[in-house]
Amino acid sequence: MKHVDRTEALRRLVREAGASKAFLIFNQANLFYFTGFQGASALYLPLEGQGTMFVYSVNYAQAEAECREVNVQLVKPEEDVIAKVAACILRDGVGCVLADALSFDGWRKLMDALGGKVMVEVDAQAVGRLRQVKDEDELTLMRKACELTSLGMKVAYETLQPGIREYELAAEVEYAMRKRGSGGTAFESIVASGLSSAYPHGGCTDRCIRSGELVVVDVGAVYGHYCADMTRTFVAGKPVAKQERLYAMVKAAQDAALSVIRPGVAARDVDVAARRVLVEAGYGENFVHALGHGVGIEVHEPPALSQTSRDVLRAGNVVTVEPGVYLVGYGGVRIEDTVLIRAEGVEKLTRAGYGLRGEQS
Amino acid sequence: MKHVDRTEALRRLVREAGASKAFLIFNQANLFYFTGFQGASALYLPLEGQGTMFVYSVNYAQAEAECREVNVQLVKPEEDVIAKVAACILRDGVGCVLADALSFDGWRKLMDALGGKVMVEVDAQAVGRLRQVKDEDELTLMRKACELTSLGMKVAYETLQPGIREYELAAEVEYAMRKRGSGGTAFESIVASGLSSAYPHGGCTDRCIRSGELVVVDVGAVYGHYCADMTRTFVAGKPVAKQERLYAMVKAAQDAALSVIRPGVAARDVDVAARRVLVEAGYGENFVHALGHGVGIEVHEPPALSQTSRDVLRAGNVVTVEPGVYLVGYGGVRIEDTVLIRAEGVEKLTRAGYGLRGEQS
Repeated sequence: MKHVDRTEALRRLVREAGASKAFLIFNQANLFYFTGFQGASALYLPLEGQGTMFVYSVNYAQAEAECREVNVQLVKPEEDVIAKVAACILRDGVGCVLADALSFDGWRKLMDALGGKVMVEVDAQAVGRLRQVKDEDELTLMRKACELTSLGMKVAYETLQPGIREYELAAEVEYAMRKRGSGGTAFESIVASGLSSAYPHGGCTDRCIRSGELVVVDVGAVYGHYCADMTRTFVAGKPVAKQERLYAMVKAAQDAALSVIRPGVAARDVDVAARRVLVEAGYGENFVHALGHGVGIEVHEPPALSQTSRDVLRAGNVVTVEPGVYLVGYGGVRIEDTVLIRAEGVEKLTRAGYGLRGEQS
Repeated sequence: MKHVDRTEALRRLVREAGASKAFLIFNQANLFYFTGFQGASALYLPLEGQGTMFVYSVNYAQAEAECREVNVQLVKPEEDVIAKVAACILRDGVGCVLADALSFDGWRKLMDALGGKVMVEVDAQAVGRLRQVKDEDELTLMRKACELTSLGMKVAYETLQPGIREYELAAEVEYAMRKRGSGGTAFESIVASGLSSAYPHGGCTDRCIRSGELVVVDVGAVYGHYCADMTRTFVAGKPVAKQERLYAMVKAAQDAALSVIRPGVAARDVDVAARRVLVEAGYGENFVHALGHGVGIEVHEPPALSQTSRDVLRAGNVVTVEPGVYLVGYGGVRIEDTVLIRAEGVEKLTRAGYGLRGEQS
């Protein structure tokens, strides 16, 4: 889908709600979504016609060369971007604008510059509702990001051995993804071993991994500015029965969640399906986070697969499914895949074997 | 310096300005600065005594284990962190709070929760003023981040050869830093070759670098959550006279800036010193960005070395000095080092040779 089509979709969404508003986009991920450009400071989308993107001189020549679908307006060092945006709004005689994100300071500046002549609403969700349904162009990029991540995970369990440091393992995984075309990492890689595997965001330190320890590896590639997110838990050496039991339980929780995911289902119910497995096994208190989250330009975006989510799943959502159990003083197990929700069910975009020794891969 | 000492320094700063305020910290970098922990959602620092850190269940066990200097309060999934913070403020009967950062939505929520009983100010600069003067603990980490970055840059010019792709070069640099202990990258690496070197944020694509082209390499390691930032410009093959002339000019601009940096100097004047060299050579219009920025927990933080900066340099500042010239349709040259401002002058923390073929290294 072209970026201009995304603008039209946003306008349609707001018109359907009976409103007539111009848009101000400030959030970096949203700016990229509507322009395909990564160096803008703001985007003004009037009710009709072409938008205007505001760009500081550092990125101006590149914006001029790369962005054909919007007007590109230079912001000089001594100018203020909010004041320039306000001038556009006043020039067009717009009565109401909807901003996707504003800091308190930015809001104050904008209100001052508009002099009380324009109604300003701030609502992050309008664009979020669009972005959570991926189009084919986006899915192509996300499939590639997930493919690179799956390759990285393969390298993780091939490289894992007693004595390697947490960050050394991360280095090998990241390098494997990067040299095949990943645009960096979607988030700070987690390699959490031993006791720190009991912390969902433990690691990635200079600690040497020891034989028999649980090792949680949570990594994500980026492709064309789209993210992937994947976790496997391994043991360096031979797992013991308790580790295998925890693993099987977490895998059962993931399977339970995957079996209920389809368009129209409340995201909350998917969390509940996974959580129930862990609660019934007596480990409900040890699943200390939500089941998953949307993934796209940002690694965490709507919809939320949590106990308190009000989102309803839709075809085209790309979400993580990542149950875990964390036993402080012992260790933790998490299993995570990034999946696409299709009309007919779930498609796993990350693909690697399961099991504490990377079996079936 | 201990994190509690940083809290005391913040209180002192505000008392010196004649005010008596409690603090609310929401900014992620500031949360890390005051707690050393990377998973908090908010920090309440009353006028005296221990602060309270608010942590969701996903990070709670780790916070309990790692943070001894603050109270750790759990935020349950169904709870709202702003409401919990407001309850603390009301309990203590605080008359005025200073928040470091709030979204418009967060501000609205906080005002509602406080019911008009407390004055709320939002000011990012109070903590910024502290953070821009690094203490010895911070400098130890930054020296290491800069050392890793310098090693990465060495790998960049050892690896550069006609035919390599931009992202492949980035992969080698990032791997070299990471396997020696870097905690990932401080920002998306830039490897911009040929025509795209004329864009300060050009690259890092799958384009094959060709012989004779300018290649701008801008990378940064992270160590202990502190960033480094460094740029060199190379030619794959033999440089031509025009490239050498541009390079010498940019180097002269950097030297001019470095020669005027010392405590007490207006940051603006350092930008002017570098800019003058390029203006006098007829390339003023081609230096399309500011000379530099502070570096620390964030890769861009105060002070700003720009034409419009009002900052005054102080001993303990760590800043980049990065002049560049960008000729659209031809290519660009940028040279950047991260430097520490000391009482007696400047200390370069990034160290690698200069020259289009990585000479003197």
